[in-house]
Amino acid sequence: MAVRVGILGATGAVGQRFIQLLDDHPTFELAALTASESSAGKRYDEAAKWRVNTPIPDDVAAMEVGSTDPADVPDDIDLLFSSLPSSVAAEVEPAFLEAGYVVSSNSSNDRMAPDVPLTIPEINPGHLDLIEVQRDERGWDGALVKNPNCSTITMVPTLAALDRFGLERVDVTTLQAVSGAGYDGVTSMEIIDNAIPHIGGEDEKMETESRKLLGSFDGAEVALHDAEVNASCNRIPTLDGHLESVFADLADDASPEDVAAAMREYPGVDLPSAPEQLIHVFEDEFRPQPRLDRDRGDGMQISAGGIQSTEHGVKYNCLAHNTIRGAAGASVLNGELLAQEGWI
Amino acid sequence: MAVRVGILGATGAVGQRFIQLLDDHPTFELAALTASESSAGKRYDEAAKWRVNTPIPDDVAAMEVGSTDPADVPDDIDLLFSSLPSSVAAEVEPAFLEAGYVVSSNSSNDRMAPDVPLTIPEINPGHLDLIEVQRDERGWDGALVKNPNCSTITMVPTLAALDRFGLERVDVTTLQAVSGAGYDGVTSMEIIDNAIPHIGGEDEKMETESRKLLGSFDGAEVALHDAEVNASCNRIPTLDGHLESVFADLADDASPEDVAAAMREYPGVDLPSAPEQLIHVFEDEFRPQPRLDRDRGDGMQISAGGIQSTEHGVKYNCLAHNTIRGAAGASVLNGELLAQEGWI
Amino acid sequence: MAVRVGILGATGAVGQRFIQLLDDHPTFELAALTASESSAGKRYDEAAKWRVNTPIPDDVAAMEVGSTDPADVPDDIDLLFSSLPSSVAAEVEPAFLEAGYVVSSNSSNDRMAPDVPLTIPEINPGHLDLIEVQRDERGWDGALVKNPNCSTITMVPTLAALDRFGLERVDVTTLQAVSGAGYDGVTSMEIIDNAIPHIGGEDEKMETESRKLLGSFDGAEVALHDAEVNASCNRIPTLDGHLESVFADLADDASPEDVAAAMREYPGVDLPSAPEQLIHVFEDEFRPQPRLDRDRGDGMQISAGGIQSTEHGVKYNCLAHNTIRGAAGASVLNGELLAQEGWI
Amino acid sequence: MAVRVGILGATGAVGQRFIQLLDDHPTFELAALTASESSAGKRYDEAAKWRVNTPIPDDVAAMEVGSTDPADVPDDIDLLFSSLPSSVAAEVEPAFLEAGYVVSSNSSNDRMAPDVPLTIPEINPGHLDLIEVQRDERGWDGALVKNPNCSTITMVPTLAALDRFGLERVDVTTLQAVSGAGYDGVTSMEIIDNAIPHIGGEDEKMETESRKLLGSFDGAEVALHDAEVNASCNRIPTLDGHLESVFADLADDASPEDVAAAMREYPGVDLPSAPEQLIHVFEDEFRPQPRLDRDRGDGMQISAGGIQSTEHGVKYNCLAHNTIRGAAGASVLNGELLAQEGWI
Repeated sequence: MAVRVGILGATGAVGQRFIQLLDDHPTFELAALTASESSAGKRYDEAAKWRVNTPIPDDVAAMEVGSTDPADVPDDIDLLFSSLPSSVAAEVEPAFLEAGYVVSSNSSNDRMAPDVPLTIPEINPGHLDLIEVQRDERGWDGALVKNPNCSTITMVPTLAALDRFGLERVDVTTLQAVSGAGYDGVTSMEIIDNAIPHIGGEDEKMETESRKLLGSFDGAEVALHDAEVNASCNRIPTLDGHLESVFADLADDASPEDVAAAMREYPGVDLPSAPEQLIHVFEDEFRPQPRLDRDRGDGMQISAGGIQSTEHGVKYNCLAHNTIRGAAGASVLNGELLAQEGWI
Repeated sequence: MAVRVGILGATGAVGQRFIQLLDDHPTFELAALTASESSAGKRYDEAAKWRVNTPIPDDVAAMEVGSTDPADVPDDIDLLFSSLPSSVAAEVEPAFLEAGYVVSSNSSNDRMAPDVPLTIPEINPGHLDLIEVQRDERGWDGALVKNPNCSTITMVPTLAALDRFGLERVDVTTLQAVSGAGYDGVTSMEIIDNAIPHIGGEDEKMETESRKLLGSFDGAEVALHDAEVNASCNRIPTLDGHLESVFADLADDASPEDVAAAMREYPGVDLPSAPEQLIHVFEDEFRPQPRLDRDRGDGMQISAGGIQSTEHGVKYNCLAHNTIRGAAGASVLNGELLAQEGWI
Repeated sequence: MAVRVGILGATGAVGQRFIQLLDDHPTFELAALTASESSAGKRYDEAAKWRVNTPIPDDVAAMEVGSTDPADVPDDIDLLFSSLPSSVAAEVEPAFLEAGYVVSSNSSNDRMAPDVPLTIPEINPGHLDLIEVQRDERGWDGALVKNPNCSTITMVPTLAALDRFGLERVDVTTLQAVSGAGYDGVTSMEIIDNAIPHIGGEDEKMETESRKLLGSFDGAEVALHDAEVNASCNRIPTLDGHLESVFADLADDASPEDVAAAMREYPGVDLPSAPEQLIHVFEDEFRPQPRLDRDRGDGMQISAGGIQSTEHGVKYNCLAHNTIRGAAGASVLNGELLAQEGWI
Repeated sequence: MAVRVGILGATGAVGQRFIQLLDDHPTFELAALTASESSAGKRYDEAAKWRVNTPIPDDVAAMEVGSTDPADVPDDIDLLFSSLPSSVAAEVEPAFLEAGYVVSSNSSNDRMAPDVPLTIPEINPGHLDLIEVQRDERGWDGALVKNPNCSTITMVPTLAALDRFGLERVDVTTLQAVSGAGYDGVTSMEIIDNAIPHIGGEDEKMETESRKLLGSFDGAEVALHDAEVNASCNRIPTLDGHLESVFADLADDASPEDVAAAMREYPGVDLPSAPEQLIHVFEDEFRPQPRLDRDRGDGMQISAGGIQSTEHGVKYNCLAHNTIRGAAGASVLNGELLAQEGWI
């Protein structure tokens, strides 16, 4: 039986990706769209300025957009995806949770809250049980699950694979695509023939979220992984696909071949939107490249390459599609995990 | 009295920058141009496809291009700048040295040779005395001085400033402009909406050259600095200006303010092409940016910014104009040092 | 029954597009690949530097590449697609035609030859009968059909639609993507933050090919359409998709609505690679845009928009994917027409 | 004696260009800066987000910004430059004129008003006498002069040169840089790997302003030139410099050489910011290019190239720096003409 899903903030860039990804989804049926008050009551194709490179699905185009308010969302919606701006989400998500909705959210608020699971299904599915702690603490009937930031999710699967050799320290520098800032986030005058050496709050997100994702959960709380993580985030003139350069210190000896094998063998999950293989490792040291490789596995596979030894471990590059694996696809995958695990 | 200078490989991209930088030089007078056999005998403006954004100086346009052969270069030339491809330079430079010429070379061959000074005037001017070792070893009357690779020179001044706090380790990731590969080096299909996570040989250049530049010279040989240097070099869709993200481990405690002060106070040199201040440190964490900051100090100043503490030291960004400070300007500056120190 | 097809020049950019388009083709079975001597004898995945954004089909990867010589191509190949450089094609194509092969060629040589059909299936399918003239004149058993240049094919369907109002004059300016020049055709230093106001030979191709395509065929020869066509071709920093701005003078009155209707209603053809509708007309005056619209109809549909009246007719914009509808897809479509019309 | 000048709207992109161009101006002394209420009272370097690639002049950095109100501007200011948004300018400029100020304005409002001179000093300096009509009609003590839109000014000097051959019709297509839309006008997601075939209101500006600039003035009113002008304006991923492709019909015979000579010989003016030669004509058909040629004559020279015959006249390309010759520099030049002609 189909899971009826809705999208909070359906007209924005990530909202449009949700619609694209949910089109022809095997088990999710899109049944509710919300946006800001100015869009409420309009047909979706009138409310949204559609910018994705596939047409709006006909049935979605004709749907009426509701306001982002629990009273305006049908009761029979089983799962809500949220791509609201974090300041809005911080206000609105609790109302939906009190009203009993299950929310898989891409918004950055509350990712590090002790009782909110921050999950990547292939990495830490067990953290989902934090929902029980959450319900106890907050008295909610609903459930809130977060996926990490796009720059974090690009790197963490490779770190999880490395952790079998004792991950001790990570120095990571990102080369991030402009779509990560939203459609209007980076002006052309800022970025053509240029690069920007800072993205507000992004270093901290990578440094904290990655340690929570790799942390251990004892049924009550998540202990952060004790590796040191230092991040330096940059914006470059690329549309989609975050490329990251990682220096990882390891406790144990591991040759580049060992590391490549660990990445390739890292297990995937059996969920509709998951790629067959989580991490594709290139032999060609000139790969992965954003434009050529961001669409691997329909944008859900992580790519890695250029693995070489350093004195204390290895250096390598990794890449993921920031608005699919790094945003809308991450939330959908968490939603699929919620369904599989019986939370909805 | 004017120093008469020549350019080996005058028609290429770096050769054109040499001509631009030598126009109106206070002490150097451009008196010889060489290129490959196919260009020899032509007027310069017929031999070169001029692509710099200032016009060819009239007197240079009318100069006759010679072949890159000592027999074809006037004896009264005091100093030669070389921007030959390294494979050509490896064959040709020795011939000029045997013939007694002093050569300030940007070509990458022989940079790590024990008897070849690799210098940045502000960093290790004393290494120039390796010329005596060189003359002893090779029996040359001339002298060969090299400047480092563009990606190395962007970072090393900041590391030199940090070394007062005991530099122990560097993990550096570069975001390099396409001009570093030469005019035809990167096709538009390769780089528009993309980034390339590897530049052949570039990691190794940064890892070795930086340690030679920061090394100590005892009059006989240069001992490499014992810091660990790990580099990961990337190409991005920017025309000029290499941006680099550095994680530096330090033996001593140093706050971001200490580090900023050390950079700002790092002494410059009194040479015609040297910037007044070697390193400009931005308070604005969104700077330096390639397009906005590469032309500081006529392209000869290093910029830094975003200095923050890490567990073992600091992280920060630095930037330089790769074809001025990182190539032609570096050779000219070394030439000015050779003149000041009495080697020509 | 499957038509067995081969590709002459299979390793280049257009050759790779042929392979991509022929993968899963309903009636064409790829059975031969040729390339230059240096590639002959290798597996395809070793001979080609694959740069298309979908993986090489497994069966193609393992195929052996032959030399571009009739003796090296199996006799049972029914149809050859050619994407050879025009200088090579001018030498090699006649040899294949003498040997009896049917060739659908994208190469620019001989497009204006009086006995060579230059066709777009939706525009002038009847010109195919020039093959009989061709066989008479040249004594070939084979047949040679050409498709027009990418910039021509973008515009001609819209002109064909306009011709019901009496096309008298066309002033067209193109904004062409870099892929039109081949993978290495435009360097990044040439085009980032820039545009180039000339493409060698391109103005003439548009000015002559369009008049042949729109010309009338009396069974013996094609009379060029008598409209005046003036073209000015420019290269811009876009990867794929040629955008063109057209001023068309018309003998009859035609409102923008009339023109839009004529374009929308212009009939398509029933061939596997043809789009359902030949020309999509946007109401939104900010469309078509290369990145958003080049993939319409799997890259085979023409887009138009911004139709407005002028004193003597109309102005409007049009767009097509230059390496699909404008190159490999055009040849495949001509091949499908050859098959449908019984020439193979 | 110095002319004391002020800038209305000094913090925006064009305002910053004014400051850059007025630095070290031989006769203009910058003495007043205005901006919106939120900036009034602040130091300029605190009010403006400086994005020009030369540093803020020290004396300007410390100036206090006033509000854009006649009461807040010193009486002894002789000339005001305006780069206000046109909606603001439409309200504010009349107040300054009533208060007796002379305003050289880049804002688009009122450019086609019958009593407002729209001038390019090299083209139609005599139109300045419309100021007398203006004063009669409006009862102002001040004077308002406009310069044309950046896309218009790029083309009109070449048309003025052609008019000796009887200009009858112009079909022009533009390839415009993103800076023409202001710093935040075009997002990176809109324009990377893309082009936009429409700029709101721009076609009409080119079609009307060009005919006023080339029109005749009989002392009472300007009669529009009777040539037909059709424009199609496009945005491309270039930072600065508008490239335009022109098809011009001429009444008289004129070879490409005649046309080139007419452009080269078109007289300049003797004003401080005027280039020595108004139009540079390239022989190289691959020029002009935005990045290589926009800075000719300190951004004030027009470039042309690619002149070829058509059936009814000629086609060619032209280029100008859109924020210098096309905006701030155009207003400064008009200010210099006002001073020379004794209007201030």
